[in-house]
Amino acid sequence: MKKDLDALMQNRQLDALLVVGAGSHNPPMTYLTNGADLTQAILVKKRGEQPTLFHWSMERDEAAKSGLPTRDLGEFRLDLLVQQAGGDQTLGMVYLLEKILTEQQVASGRVGLYGILDAGRAYASFTRLQQALPELELIGEMGISVFGEAMATKDDVEVERIRRMGKITTEVIGKTADFLTGHRARNNVLVEANGDPLTIGEVKRRIDLWLAERGAENPERTIFASGYDAAVPHSTGENASLMRLGETVVFDIFPREVGGGYFYDITRTWCLGYATDEALALYEDVRAVYLQLRSELRLGQVCRLYQERACELFEQRGHATVRTNPQTQDGYVHSLGHGVGLHLHEEPAFRLNGPDSVRLAPGAVITVEPGLYYPGRKMGVRLEDTIYARPDGVFETLADFPLDLVLPVQG
Amino acid sequence: MKKDLDALMQNRQLDALLVVGAGSHNPPMTYLTNGADLTQAILVKKRGEQPTLFHWSMERDEAAKSGLPTRDLGEFRLDLLVQQAGGDQTLGMVYLLEKILTEQQVASGRVGLYGILDAGRAYASFTRLQQALPELELIGEMGISVFGEAMATKDDVEVERIRRMGKITTEVIGKTADFLTGHRARNNVLVEANGDPLTIGEVKRRIDLWLAERGAENPERTIFASGYDAAVPHSTGENASLMRLGETVVFDIFPREVGGGYFYDITRTWCLGYATDEALALYEDVRAVYLQLRSELRLGQVCRLYQERACELFEQRGHATVRTNPQTQDGYVHSLGHGVGLHLHEEPAFRLNGPDSVRLAPGAVITVEPGLYYPGRKMGVRLEDTIYARPDGVFETLADFPLDLVLPVQG
Repeated sequence: MKKDLDALMQNRQLDALLVVGAGSHNPPMTYLTNGADLTQAILVKKRGEQPTLFHWSMERDEAAKSGLPTRDLGEFRLDLLVQQAGGDQTLGMVYLLEKILTEQQVASGRVGLYGILDAGRAYASFTRLQQALPELELIGEMGISVFGEAMATKDDVEVERIRRMGKITTEVIGKTADFLTGHRARNNVLVEANGDPLTIGEVKRRIDLWLAERGAENPERTIFASGYDAAVPHSTGENASLMRLGETVVFDIFPREVGGGYFYDITRTWCLGYATDEALALYEDVRAVYLQLRSELRLGQVCRLYQERACELFEQRGHATVRTNPQTQDGYVHSLGHGVGLHLHEEPAFRLNGPDSVRLAPGAVITVEPGLYYPGRKMGVRLEDTIYARPDGVFETLADFPLDLVLPVQG
Repeated sequence: MKKDLDALMQNRQLDALLVVGAGSHNPPMTYLTNGADLTQAILVKKRGEQPTLFHWSMERDEAAKSGLPTRDLGEFRLDLLVQQAGGDQTLGMVYLLEKILTEQQVASGRVGLYGILDAGRAYASFTRLQQALPELELIGEMGISVFGEAMATKDDVEVERIRRMGKITTEVIGKTADFLTGHRARNNVLVEANGDPLTIGEVKRRIDLWLAERGAENPERTIFASGYDAAVPHSTGENASLMRLGETVVFDIFPREVGGGYFYDITRTWCLGYATDEALALYEDVRAVYLQLRSELRLGQVCRLYQERACELFEQRGHATVRTNPQTQDGYVHSLGHGVGLHLHEEPAFRLNGPDSVRLAPGAVITVEPGLYYPGRKMGVRLEDTIYARPDGVFETLADFPLDLVLPVQG
């Protein structure tokens, strides 16, 4: 949690954190600036102190909304620093960071580096900055960073924001179900009032609208994939595809608070009109594994073991898994889940080869999302919810929606 | 332009480009993958050759849509590499990049590094990769990168995509104007049918809806700022603010193709009902400077000189500028414009201290956006269009919308 940052810095012997890059859509920046809507900013957090927010002059009022101590970057005269750098903006920014770290008296010790940037520019800039400040040790963290570890558990404010996104998301799933069942079928495909077939493109357009109406953005798009596409977990579905009765439709929706806040992540699988025996059997397997795993969630457990367990349960039901064949494209082909927060995918991750230190800590908000995929049979099924590991040990689904497979359709 | 990449690589003595990070919302990746919708990918482009796209197994069908030669990352067994790295995903990815560069026979020479990543992770990863591959020279470019230079001019396909976004954006501006003028005023503020005052939050909600309906996303939000907020160029406006007659409203809208494509950028300033003499005078100054600069655009000119010229023109009209006082918050307080493409702000930039090499090249798509701001008088005016520097020397506004200041309102 955010309040643990100082202790986590201590564990990692980090004396300060430097966050650079955009003011929004930049998780460590968003995490610390409390919703101030800045285009660009720089944060310096010394251990045991509040972060200082360095902002551009034009954004002074937005910066003030962070509640943090602020400094106007105008005073640092980037224009002169860029001149000094022979017109090179990137090098001018390095000089600026040097001035800031010196002024903040982060003159020695270990400084962790964070924020979303162009990778090459980051490599070049920090290499230069390290040369300019030899008393400092600039640290790019490998593995799970101090922010990754802090963000892996959520405080009450964060959980409420995710819960609110869950409410919005399940409302949109409900509207989508109503929209589909409000259509008639002709020649085995859903058709609009004028007789034209309904396309997945049109369904997705509606979904984006319903999200926008509710203050959600959809940066990673929506997976609404039928038939063969449903059998390829990351296929987002083809806009030109029709809605055929009996096919499995994987509907995986993961919107975010507008402006770059918290995500929600949920998947349902639907068959329109009816399910074939084959689809129903796959669905029953996924549902059983989902409910079983759901019931086995315990605070303190190693996350990797749930992925092992998911493989075990699917193998018992006769499916190939990534454990029996890491390259399989049939059966259970991905990992069981991930943390959800300012990133769609964050810690804790449920990976087969994850470390024992990644556990189900109180405050974790995770997905559980078993699935089965058979491209040759043009069929896929996945079920997923976002679940809060409450400090009292209860695992709470943050927004409910029925798991049902079949959506009835008028003939 | 994209077709110049090999020549630009040659100029910079780059033997290969390595692009890492997300498959979308990652401009160099989007630039080369031709719209394939991937979550994560790796690109290696050797000079004189097509890029090779390394994708995850689950995304094989999306990867194929790029039209590039593809390789399935499943074959590289990241699971084993992560094991080898003691469970550290980041280090596992470094091993993966090492394998890929070795296999691609980028065994010597200079390799440029690109793609959006966490800055600290990039610094750590490339430092490790450089140690592992001492024959290679990994280059993080300072200043304008090879992608920055290529993207600074657009080919016909890119211009058409920006033009289409311009059409969508001006439609939404028109709908917003109609929406506002469709309201009555009471006690000097716009009110809804039920007599409740109309808020900026409600206006912005509508704007997002109209954008979503047209297949546009709005990652950087919309500036719709009135009164004091209009006088602070980067203030996005307060949701709770009312629409008061006579106040200046700066409406700066810069949406993007959904999924992370091309931006459009345009600003209009409106007064509802009437304009005060003071507002009208500011508007006339900005409009005159805008039209004058617009008429002076010439292929081959140094971009910096237009910012000089903007300052000169505003100073002649009695306003402070960033040239007379770099920290001024009154008068003309920002730069004149920027390139628009896969980034909202890209090259060419119109900066006072920009280098002479940044010129108005044929194919550039730029904004021209002079403005005047007086926080003490709670008043700001900006006018902006996105303009294409056609190879025939014509400077073409990519989507037209009237510059008018006053929006009539029923009393």
